[in-house]
Amino acid sequence: MKHFLNTQDWSRAEIDAVLREAADYKRHRFGDALKGKGVALVFFNSSLRTRTSFELGAFQLGAHAVVLQPGKDAWPVEFDLGTVMDGDAEEHIAEVAKVLSRYVDLIGVRAFPKFIDWSIDRQDRVLNGFARYSTVPVINMETITHPCQELAHALALREHFGTEDLRGRKYVLTWTWHPKALNTAVANSALTIATRMGMDVTLLCPTEDYLLDERYMDWAERNVAENGGSFNVSHDIASAYRDTDVVYAKSWGALPYFGRWEKEKPIRDQFRHFIVDEEKMAMTRNGVFSHCLPLRRNVKATDAVMDSPNCIAIEEAENRLHVQKAVMATLARQTD
Amino acid sequence: MKHFLNTQDWSRAEIDAVLREAADYKRHRFGDALKGKGVALVFFNSSLRTRTSFELGAFQLGAHAVVLQPGKDAWPVEFDLGTVMDGDAEEHIAEVAKVLSRYVDLIGVRAFPKFIDWSIDRQDRVLNGFARYSTVPVINMETITHPCQELAHALALREHFGTEDLRGRKYVLTWTWHPKALNTAVANSALTIATRMGMDVTLLCPTEDYLLDERYMDWAERNVAENGGSFNVSHDIASAYRDTDVVYAKSWGALPYFGRWEKEKPIRDQFRHFIVDEEKMAMTRNGVFSHCLPLRRNVKATDAVMDSPNCIAIEEAENRLHVQKAVMATLARQTD
Amino acid sequence: MKHFLNTQDWSRAEIDAVLREAADYKRHRFGDALKGKGVALVFFNSSLRTRTSFELGAFQLGAHAVVLQPGKDAWPVEFDLGTVMDGDAEEHIAEVAKVLSRYVDLIGVRAFPKFIDWSIDRQDRVLNGFARYSTVPVINMETITHPCQELAHALALREHFGTEDLRGRKYVLTWTWHPKALNTAVANSALTIATRMGMDVTLLCPTEDYLLDERYMDWAERNVAENGGSFNVSHDIASAYRDTDVVYAKSWGALPYFGRWEKEKPIRDQFRHFIVDEEKMAMTRNGVFSHCLPLRRNVKATDAVMDSPNCIAIEEAENRLHVQKAVMATLARQTD
Repeated sequence: MKHFLNTQDWSRAEIDAVLREAADYKRHRFGDALKGKGVALVFFNSSLRTRTSFELGAFQLGAHAVVLQPGKDAWPVEFDLGTVMDGDAEEHIAEVAKVLSRYVDLIGVRAFPKFIDWSIDRQDRVLNGFARYSTVPVINMETITHPCQELAHALALREHFGTEDLRGRKYVLTWTWHPKALNTAVANSALTIATRMGMDVTLLCPTEDYLLDERYMDWAERNVAENGGSFNVSHDIASAYRDTDVVYAKSWGALPYFGRWEKEKPIRDQFRHFIVDEEKMAMTRNGVFSHCLPLRRNVKATDAVMDSPNCIAIEEAENRLHVQKAVMATLARQTD
Repeated sequence: MKHFLNTQDWSRAEIDAVLREAADYKRHRFGDALKGKGVALVFFNSSLRTRTSFELGAFQLGAHAVVLQPGKDAWPVEFDLGTVMDGDAEEHIAEVAKVLSRYVDLIGVRAFPKFIDWSIDRQDRVLNGFARYSTVPVINMETITHPCQELAHALALREHFGTEDLRGRKYVLTWTWHPKALNTAVANSALTIATRMGMDVTLLCPTEDYLLDERYMDWAERNVAENGGSFNVSHDIASAYRDTDVVYAKSWGALPYFGRWEKEKPIRDQFRHFIVDEEKMAMTRNGVFSHCLPLRRNVKATDAVMDSPNCIAIEEAENRLHVQKAVMATLARQTD
Repeated sequence: MKHFLNTQDWSRAEIDAVLREAADYKRHRFGDALKGKGVALVFFNSSLRTRTSFELGAFQLGAHAVVLQPGKDAWPVEFDLGTVMDGDAEEHIAEVAKVLSRYVDLIGVRAFPKFIDWSIDRQDRVLNGFARYSTVPVINMETITHPCQELAHALALREHFGTEDLRGRKYVLTWTWHPKALNTAVANSALTIATRMGMDVTLLCPTEDYLLDERYMDWAERNVAENGGSFNVSHDIASAYRDTDVVYAKSWGALPYFGRWEKEKPIRDQFRHFIVDEEKMAMTRNGVFSHCLPLRRNVKATDAVMDSPNCIAIEEAENRLHVQKAVMATLARQTD
C-alpha cells in the first residue's frame, strides 16, 4: 500500500498522472472517487488553508473529513516499542493509527518540528509512525516537507508556462528574511520538486549556514541525475536572479543554530535585503513569482511584487485543493 | 456582487423576500440552493448557536461548511496596505480573503469588538476587510451589528402577530443590567430592524450614557422617514412599557466608558431594576417578549417571563437557521 | 421519548436489537436511517475516537454531525431553576437544550466528572440536564458511565465467542495501576454490561477502597437476579484470573479519596503489579483481553498482551462506530 509522504517516493509518471487529474478537477469540481469514504485530518499544528482545502476536497469527491486537533503542540503519544509508559504519553502510536484506520479510509497528518533538536525532528517520527501502523494510506499535510504544496506549485508553473515540460527553465529558490526562524519544510520541498521537473535550479541563500539538510540536497542531486537540468547554490543575489524564469521565496531558520534561535537572530538580521522587490524581479526574464503563503508583505516580498500579474501565489494556493483531491483519489483507488 | 453585511444595505423588498424564503424553509427543511457549494465560517469569537445553525443550514441545502477559528481573539492579520509587516501580523487580509474565495462560495465572519477603543471597533475592519478583498459574498455572523439575528427576530414577530405588516405595533428595546459590559451589536440591530419594519420604537435605557452609536441612531431616524412609525428615547420604565406590543431586552456597555469598564460599573450597578419581570410585562398590551440568547435568568429577565407563553426567544433562536439559509441561498443565486 | 443515558434504562430485548443492528452495519457501512438529520455532539471534554466514530457514523447514515466544544472543562451553564444568574453562568441548561433541539434531531453529550466532590459528580447533572430539557433524544458519550463502550465491548465479546449468548463465561474486570486517578465511568459500565449479559463476573481490585459506587454495585446485583450468572468482588489476583474467559482492564481512582488524590497516590502506588501480563493471562482459560483505550503500554498491560491475538481492544474500538450508528438509528426511529 502506497502512502503520500514525499513526492520522492513516487515515480515521475505517478506524479504526472496526479497533476493531470488535478488539472481535471480544476475544470470539473465534482467526482465520486471518494464516495462514502471517511478521511481523518490530524493536525498537531493549526491550519486554515490546508484544512479548508482538504475538507472541501473530500466533500466534493463524496467523502467526509473529520478534523482532529489533538492538543496542538503537545499530544503526548509514545512512538517507541517496549517503553514503560508511565510518563506523559497516554497512548501509543500503534493504537492511535490502528483505531483510526478502522474508522477512516485515509489519514492526513500535519506535524511540525518541535524546533529543539534537528537530529530528532529530521526523523519525522509522527508521520512515519502513522505510516508504519496505519492500515490505510497516510498523507503528509506538512511536517518537515510539504509535498502537497510541491504539487500545487508544479501545477501553477505548468499553467503559467502553458506546458507540462518545465525543462530549460531557470528557477531560483530564494531565502528571505523573516522576524522568526521558520520551518525548512517548504524550502526542502521546493528544491525537491523543482529538480524533479528538470529545471535549472539555484538555491539562493545568504551563507552556508542556510543550506538545507543534506537529505534534500542529495535528493536534488539525484533528481538532476535522473531528470536533467542542474542544481547549484548561490549567495549572490544579482547573478541568481539574472535571466531566471521563476522566483520562489521562502524564509527558514539556519540549521546549525536549530533551537538556539537567539544566536542566529543577529546573523539573520543582516539579510533583510533578500526581500523580493521590483528591482530584483526586473533582472529576471519576465520571471514569475510565487510563495506558499502566508506571506508578510514588504518583508518577504513587496506589495508591488505581490500585486503584480506575474505573482501566481493565489493560483498556487487554489491548486492545493485540486492536487489534494487527486492525491486522495489516487490513494483511495489502490484499496478499492 | 452583494454581501450581507447589514440589513441597511439591502432594500426592504430584498429583506421581505428573504423572510418569505425563510418561512418556506421553516416548513420544508431541504433544498438544493447550495448544492455542492462550500461555505467558510470564520469565527474570531466562539459560538454554539450561530455555528450550529449555519453549519446545518448549509448541509440542508446541499453545501458543506468549514468552520475556521483562527486563534480566537488574536489572529494577527494586517488590514492596511503599504505596511512593512515585521510585527505580529503573519498575513494580510488581501491574501486571506482571496485564497478563501478560491476554495468556497460564501464566507461568514464573526468578529466582536476588541473593547479597547470604540472609534476603532466601530470601523468593523475585519468584516469590511473580508468584504473588500473577497471575490465571493460575505455574511456578517455578528460583529458590531448582528443582521442575522435581526431577520430571525423579524420573522418571529411576524409569526407571533400572524402578519407581515408590523406597522402600528409599539416596540420597546430595553437595556437590562448584566454583570459585564457587553457588545452593542444586538442593540444596534434591534433598533435597525424594528424601525425598518415601521414600528413605533422606544429605546429604553437608564441614562444618556447608554445611547447607541450615532450611526445606528441615524439609521433608525432614516428608517422612520422611509417606512413610517416613530422612534424615541426614554429613561422612564413605566411609560415605555405602557401598552407596548413587543419587549426586546439586551444589555450593553455605555459607549462613553468604552474600554474603561471599571469606571462604568458603579453607574451600571444602579440599574439592576431594569430586569424584565411580570410586573413590567403586566403594563404592556399582552406584549410579547424576546431576547437573542444567551440570557442570564433572573438578571435580565425572570423565570416567569422566560417560561411564559408570551416569550418567543426559543422561536427566534430557531429562526436563525431558517433566515440564514435564505440569506445564503439569496447570495449564492447572484453568482450562479 | 427514549434517551440513551444508560443501558440499564433499556430492556434486554432493546439492547439485543441494537447489537444486531450494529452487527449489520459492520457488514454494510451505509444506510439512510438518519437521512437529512442533524446531530449535535457536545464535548465538555475532548475526544478523538468518540468524535470520529460519531461524526462518521452520522455521515454514513445520511446525517450531518456538528461538533461543539463549549469551553472544554469550564462552560458556565446553570442547572438549577430559580437562581439569580449573576455569577459565572451565562446561560441556563433549559435554553441550551431547547435551542439545540430546534436545530438537531439528536444530541450527544460528553461531560466528565469535575473530580472535586463525588456526591455532586454522581448526579450526572450535565447529562440529566440535557435529558430533562431537550425535546430530542440525548445520547451519553461518556459521563460517569460509558454505555456506548459497553455495547462495543459486548459486540466484540459476541464476535469473539461466536454467539450472542455469553452466559457461563467467567469475566474479570481488573483494576490496574495508572499514574493518575481516573474516572470510574468505564469500570461502572463494564460491571453493568457484563452482569447484564449473565456472565459470572468478578470485580478484581486491590482493596475495598477501590469498590465502585453503590449505584453500580446494585445494578450488578439486580442484573444477576434478572439475567442469571453471578457477581463477586476479589482482591486476590491469582484466584480471580484462574480459568477466566474474559479479562477487561481499567484503572480508576478510589472513591473514598475522590478529589484528594494526593492522599490516594501512596496507596495506589503499592499496586503496580496489577498490570495485565502474560503470566496472569496464562492462568486464564485461553482468555480474551480487552480495554477501552487509550492504554499505557507496559503500565496497564504489557506489549505482549496488547499484541497477542487474544487482544480484542482494536476490534472493540472499531465497534464503537457500529453500535453508535445503531443507537442513533434506534433513537431516530421513535420520532419519525
